[in-house]
Amino acid sequence: MKAIAVEPGAGIPEIIDRPVPEPAPGEALVRICRVGVDGTDYEVIEGSHGGVPAGDDRLILGHEAVGIVDDANGTALEKGQYVVPTVRRPPAGVETNEYFERGEPDMAPEGKYVERGIVGAHGFMAEYVTSPADALVPIADELAPWGFLVEPISISEKAIEHARATRSAFDWQPESALVLGNGSLGLLTVAMFTTTLEFDRVYCLGRRDRPDPSIEIIEQLGATYIDSRETPVSDIAEVYEPMDLIYEATGYAKHAFESIDALAPNGVAALLGVPGDWSFEVDGGRLHRELVLHNKALVGSVNSNRTHFERSIETLAALPDGVLESIVTGIHGLDAVDRAFPEATANVAAAGHGTAATVEDDTTIKTAVEFEAI
Amino acid sequence: MKAIAVEPGAGIPEIIDRPVPEPAPGEALVRICRVGVDGTDYEVIEGSHGGVPAGDDRLILGHEAVGIVDDANGTALEKGQYVVPTVRRPPAGVETNEYFERGEPDMAPEGKYVERGIVGAHGFMAEYVTSPADALVPIADELAPWGFLVEPISISEKAIEHARATRSAFDWQPESALVLGNGSLGLLTVAMFTTTLEFDRVYCLGRRDRPDPSIEIIEQLGATYIDSRETPVSDIAEVYEPMDLIYEATGYAKHAFESIDALAPNGVAALLGVPGDWSFEVDGGRLHRELVLHNKALVGSVNSNRTHFERSIETLAALPDGVLESIVTGIHGLDAVDRAFPEATANVAAAGHGTAATVEDDTTIKTAVEFEAI
Repeated sequence: MKAIAVEPGAGIPEIIDRPVPEPAPGEALVRICRVGVDGTDYEVIEGSHGGVPAGDDRLILGHEAVGIVDDANGTALEKGQYVVPTVRRPPAGVETNEYFERGEPDMAPEGKYVERGIVGAHGFMAEYVTSPADALVPIADELAPWGFLVEPISISEKAIEHARATRSAFDWQPESALVLGNGSLGLLTVAMFTTTLEFDRVYCLGRRDRPDPSIEIIEQLGATYIDSRETPVSDIAEVYEPMDLIYEATGYAKHAFESIDALAPNGVAALLGVPGDWSFEVDGGRLHRELVLHNKALVGSVNSNRTHFERSIETLAALPDGVLESIVTGIHGLDAVDRAFPEATANVAAAGHGTAATVEDDTTIKTAVEFEAI
Repeated sequence: MKAIAVEPGAGIPEIIDRPVPEPAPGEALVRICRVGVDGTDYEVIEGSHGGVPAGDDRLILGHEAVGIVDDANGTALEKGQYVVPTVRRPPAGVETNEYFERGEPDMAPEGKYVERGIVGAHGFMAEYVTSPADALVPIADELAPWGFLVEPISISEKAIEHARATRSAFDWQPESALVLGNGSLGLLTVAMFTTTLEFDRVYCLGRRDRPDPSIEIIEQLGATYIDSRETPVSDIAEVYEPMDLIYEATGYAKHAFESIDALAPNGVAALLGVPGDWSFEVDGGRLHRELVLHNKALVGSVNSNRTHFERSIETLAALPDGVLESIVTGIHGLDAVDRAFPEATANVAAAGHGTAATVEDDTTIKTAVEFEAI
């Protein structure tokens, strides 16, 4: 079968041939339909994150997938059913551990999991994959075309669940939300805030000039675009309003700290970005005092578990018409894989011209690879 | 009646005469027995925090009190009953607001409250005070001698409640706790962790040389003393162990950030200190990444409400014999008020000698003023 793999650090994915995997007892065989591409994939491609499974020199990419059960293999699944796989699995050679047993692999510390398509286990960008049946979440046929968005939305489901939990010791009635980052995850989260989560006022920070498709989506959703070049995060409370909930998806480390100033009293910032080391000065005294005197909280969140996938599918069904069509800007077959990875392609092209600059593509928001039409 | 008041910034409290207050409808008249002294009092005395009520030039100090109902004034209280007053009240001229209505004045933002003995309202260091009956929490006669510790313990009750809330979205089974700060609040919280909260391993950070009474209390409680001069907070995870819960009561701003490194995966740090402005460098990229990849949280907490006072009284009843006697190092009558405020006295003495150095008194842990014997 064909698969899309990367030699970490090689800078560009390639199509390889691998045998169709055989499901072990308790596993099903899934024929993959579509797999989304996100920033983590690019980090794996560049070699700054993730790693190959032991004994292999390449990693099959992909962690945002939807497929169809090809062989239920005696599990409770049914052949022909659409499913979305979760990402974390026990480490090689380990059947399970306490985190997987209680359905919370997203809370497992390093060494207690591998992540398919990211670190230690092959991903879903292949014509066929196997998976334990309990890591395959059924999705209705009519939602299956968007099924590759279930995993990214589940990341936000978890982050917002944890953010709400931090505020569960008192009567919290948030009205304003700010999303930092206007990438596909940021835009999906703006859609969640304005629709299923029913926030009154939603803002999204980016640094794009108009006209820009992401700004159009933000405004179509009834949210307010904030240009970070005009209004830095630390000024947002004054220029717009203090925010009850902030969702950070930029990976820009200063945002984690500036969020404290942008929060309303009793507010919480959920952090999702994964920046590299970066030292800078902060007014730590003021930030510490702000957290305390105004009962503010910061909560980091990574990955998601099956309950978040299930909630994500409900969210997907409830999002307004047109928003997914606007966010997903390209679904590409194996004959045009390079178009599904425009940044990798651009990087390689740029490197070929002797420059390391990333070529920005302002019209691409979210792409997916299609292995089989839905 | 006699009261202990301060002209903010004057540097030392004084005994003044004021008329006995008359209870308004819904208020009771309370004869004060004992009032604790804490770091906030010293900030008010120095003038770095708090403020006088409108129209007065002095603030009656004291927010950690226990007294006896002298005139129930038609409220549900009974004359002769011991009570502990809560601290926040609606601002002058305001009967109530949403935060007081739902029993959560501790979550009110600035401008929506005054704090008795701290900002905008006279405190409890007086022979008599009046208070709305619902802000007076009954305490059993046998606990009344320690009733001035209910308010500080309630601060920890709230902080720990909020810290636990941040971890309520998953199955959190904390075992290790670290208290930053070996002042009286730190020691009371160590006692809570080792007894009522049943943590397996408890640590307390200070910077004192042995022999020292606070180190003795830490060790009598079965906790481990960590000398911050030997093991900085950022090294604690490696030298001792990563901590599931950190409670910061130093007001030293770097601790808020170093706590992130000292936390175990899925851990939470509750911040209570109120530092002044202080800029310094942090590896913000690493701290941000740590919060995210290991699902860590920081939660600020200030003040407490009636439910925390009620829980605090239960905690007080459950603390092991001897610990309160060790922590409370002096209860002083009006004839020896200066001994209840040794730091203010020392500062004034030092200032008189032309030096601004604070004279440290290593044997004083917690003092109280006694207006009437219990």
